[in-house]
Amino acid sequence: MSGTQSQATASSLQICRIMRPDDANIVGNVHGGTILKMIEEAGCIIGTRHCNTQPGDRCAAQLARVERTDFLYPMFIGEVAHVSAEITYASKHSVEVQVHVMSENILTGATKMTNRAALWYVPFSLEDVDNVTEVPPIKYASPGQEEEGKKRYEAQKMERLETKERNGELLMPVSAPEPYTVGFSQSSLIHLVGPSDCTLHGFVHGGVTMKLMDEVAGIVAARHCKTNIVTASVDAINFHRKIMKGCVVTVSGRATFASNKSMEIEVFVDADPLIEAEKGKYRAVTAFFTYISLDKQGKPLSIPPMKLEGDGEQKRFEDGKMRYLQNKAKRLADKERQQ
Amino acid sequence: MSGTQSQATASSLQICRIMRPDDANIVGNVHGGTILKMIEEAGCIIGTRHCNTQPGDRCAAQLARVERTDFLYPMFIGEVAHVSAEITYASKHSVEVQVHVMSENILTGATKMTNRAALWYVPFSLEDVDNVTEVPPIKYASPGQEEEGKKRYEAQKMERLETKERNGELLMPVSAPEPYTVGFSQSSLIHLVGPSDCTLHGFVHGGVTMKLMDEVAGIVAARHCKTNIVTASVDAINFHRKIMKGCVVTVSGRATFASNKSMEIEVFVDADPLIEAEKGKYRAVTAFFTYISLDKQGKPLSIPPMKLEGDGEQKRFEDGKMRYLQNKAKRLADKERQQ
Amino acid sequence: MSGTQSQATASSLQICRIMRPDDANIVGNVHGGTILKMIEEAGCIIGTRHCNTQPGDRCAAQLARVERTDFLYPMFIGEVAHVSAEITYASKHSVEVQVHVMSENILTGATKMTNRAALWYVPFSLEDVDNVTEVPPIKYASPGQEEEGKKRYEAQKMERLETKERNGELLMPVSAPEPYTVGFSQSSLIHLVGPSDCTLHGFVHGGVTMKLMDEVAGIVAARHCKTNIVTASVDAINFHRKIMKGCVVTVSGRATFASNKSMEIEVFVDADPLIEAEKGKYRAVTAFFTYISLDKQGKPLSIPPMKLEGDGEQKRFEDGKMRYLQNKAKRLADKERQQ
Repeated sequence: MSGTQSQATASSLQICRIMRPDDANIVGNVHGGTILKMIEEAGCIIGTRHCNTQPGDRCAAQLARVERTDFLYPMFIGEVAHVSAEITYASKHSVEVQVHVMSENILTGATKMTNRAALWYVPFSLEDVDNVTEVPPIKYASPGQEEEGKKRYEAQKMERLETKERNGELLMPVSAPEPYTVGFSQSSLIHLVGPSDCTLHGFVHGGVTMKLMDEVAGIVAARHCKTNIVTASVDAINFHRKIMKGCVVTVSGRATFASNKSMEIEVFVDADPLIEAEKGKYRAVTAFFTYISLDKQGKPLSIPPMKLEGDGEQKRFEDGKMRYLQNKAKRLADKERQQ
Repeated sequence: MSGTQSQATASSLQICRIMRPDDANIVGNVHGGTILKMIEEAGCIIGTRHCNTQPGDRCAAQLARVERTDFLYPMFIGEVAHVSAEITYASKHSVEVQVHVMSENILTGATKMTNRAALWYVPFSLEDVDNVTEVPPIKYASPGQEEEGKKRYEAQKMERLETKERNGELLMPVSAPEPYTVGFSQSSLIHLVGPSDCTLHGFVHGGVTMKLMDEVAGIVAARHCKTNIVTASVDAINFHRKIMKGCVVTVSGRATFASNKSMEIEVFVDADPLIEAEKGKYRAVTAFFTYISLDKQGKPLSIPPMKLEGDGEQKRFEDGKMRYLQNKAKRLADKERQQ
Repeated sequence: MSGTQSQATASSLQICRIMRPDDANIVGNVHGGTILKMIEEAGCIIGTRHCNTQPGDRCAAQLARVERTDFLYPMFIGEVAHVSAEITYASKHSVEVQVHVMSENILTGATKMTNRAALWYVPFSLEDVDNVTEVPPIKYASPGQEEEGKKRYEAQKMERLETKERNGELLMPVSAPEPYTVGFSQSSLIHLVGPSDCTLHGFVHGGVTMKLMDEVAGIVAARHCKTNIVTASVDAINFHRKIMKGCVVTVSGRATFASNKSMEIEVFVDADPLIEAEKGKYRAVTAFFTYISLDKQGKPLSIPPMKLEGDGEQKRFEDGKMRYLQNKAKRLADKERQQ
């Protein structure tokens, strides 16, 4: 044991983990993203460790680049993923980490090399987060090894300079909406329904859906208010149709009404059976969430007024105002009854 | 409360859990969605348990409706949330579960009632998922109690009938794109960066970003192919700018190229500092992911050809083809060298 | 790299992971339950792998017992936990896995041995889940090593036979309990077993159960002390019965004993098959957890004395005191032997 352990504290590292249902799609294939995340965790540990092996500012290794990566074989739920990482080159301000991923079937003993990856990390000072620190040198097994590493370093440097940020237009342009308009704060997310979102029989828990709805509505409210916002109430929600395992859920939210102290957000949940696409997309749930805005002491703040555009928004605002006044009246009546 | 606890194995239930960083926003306020999810978990357990207390088909209680819910006080990280659920009415085909939520500060002993909620569940047979089963009767403390419950039942039934699915238009209509077009499969998600996504110093782990990118790209590929798809490779990824705690990340993907056996998806990651909004939204990462499509035996399937629209899509397709041919040539060269 | 890799596929294994905010309490101390879960994951991989190294039925190693474990040093968010596991003894139907846990501060390079643990696994056939399979023999470095292992095997076998399932009555609520009484701090939680809690074959991982036990025991300790508390040790735990997918698990904890510097909490785990309710609720695991209380500088604090009520509590307190004195004597003896 001592052998592996002493190696672990030097410039190589092994991570392994059993692949679980939440790491995979419904057919049991582990997501590429699960593997990329494990690879990067190994790289981050080994990179940060190496860059702190000399006196001076403590630093954190930030991922700067991942070289092209192939997924050679699929991995499955129940297999063990072994990630081995090694520092293979150090320039003045960056380190290269090479990573191998193997899958192991612990029932049959079969192992397969599923990925090889190379990652570049740059150390940033923890005292001054914009400051890149120097990287301690590493020992190479041979001068040839260092030379090879240097070539890779120069090649990726060139490519990084060439690749400017692809400023592909936003996919769904909303023609730069003005702050405080409905278009400015509206938001949507998609979520691929995973095993932990579902009952044992493959239906999405209502609570999971409500959590996603609150997440989107909260982002709409925060985009509008730019403050700490908290959920104040949720209107009655009807669950019209079941959502099943393997669906993609689209959750969209838009501001409908704002009083001085609260704002209302309408949320839509659409389910899209990814594979049995003939069933078609359908609207599963809709609801209204109400948020209040808080300052740093937790005291309520005013809500910035909404800028309404078009009749539709005006109409929804009036409807929202009606709900607001009804709820206010109801709360007052409840209070009086209790006295 | 003491009464309900001894009944715990009958028709009431208590859940409690410490609120963790991932349950809350960066200021420490627990998300309303976290609480709604706990409430529904309690309701689902107690509802399913009750509906299976008689002979006949086993069944699962599905959430049909949540009554309007107020969040009376905020809850914070480190507090314990106590959720108490009780079955308060049973009709022939539904049960009402009433839930109370209390927050407890276990260091000071302070407790607060933060929510009251009422949920309606309908039991579906596990043998035939479209079949609603009968609900066993419950015992009421008094005839008045049953009568009150019946009134609530009738009221919500009426409301459910009235509320049709609000068929609000999709928020960002893409004028019903045709299958196999870029517009048909393009997808995007927003993700509010949480504590577990970050390093100790508040920067998003590169691996977390890559996992979100693979998630979106995988949904694009599945929407296009309607089959089981798996990641085949990822192009070199440059991380141009850091993403920090408290950002909302928008990850968008669109198909760029499809050969007979694989398709390429371009992914954009945009970061939006929610609260310090003056910093402005910026593009943090872009990359190309390649997917293959598999049949039920794990054999590769053909990719449906893309329907291109406009010069932009045509141009991106040509660029993708170039990358595809270069990678293919490089793989062949690597193979020959190894022989 | 090849060196570590070939070892990994034999009878030892290393797991490591960065500790994240959700792994810790609000002061930043990693939960004992997080570490127990990692230990068990390593044991489960290595045990299952070993038991499948011969022809015959494929099998899954189920956790049967964890020996008494001390938490020697606290671990913190941002540190890397290294878990090394090795098979140290094999009887006909069980294997012993010894595990070491080290914490590494990757900024300072400081490492500490934080835990040593010994776990016993029993392989169950995947064809017939009630059938225990035979364990392949292992190679010992010396005859003495085998003999030592056999002694440990016999000792734990004896203890397992002695320990009947403690049939502690369900925790009864006390109306408005006074601070420092048992009734005041007793706690319980309910957890619906999800897919990621389970092995591929639908049994709850022992590590998941231990994590829940630590969570409840930690709440009991915090309620009693109203300070930052950390896990100091866990008594030997016997896993009497398997818990399956679809169960609801109730985990309950109550204070049994407090010395000046530590307090002991008894934890019960009851499993309740939600749908196949005719199978009935059963007690699956019981254990004693010991906690210490820390001030803001991480220095130990006195534990407030317990207010005992009734003969039952008095009896359990005396039993706890006995365990406390025995462990203290054992620690002293161990120390002397090492000198």
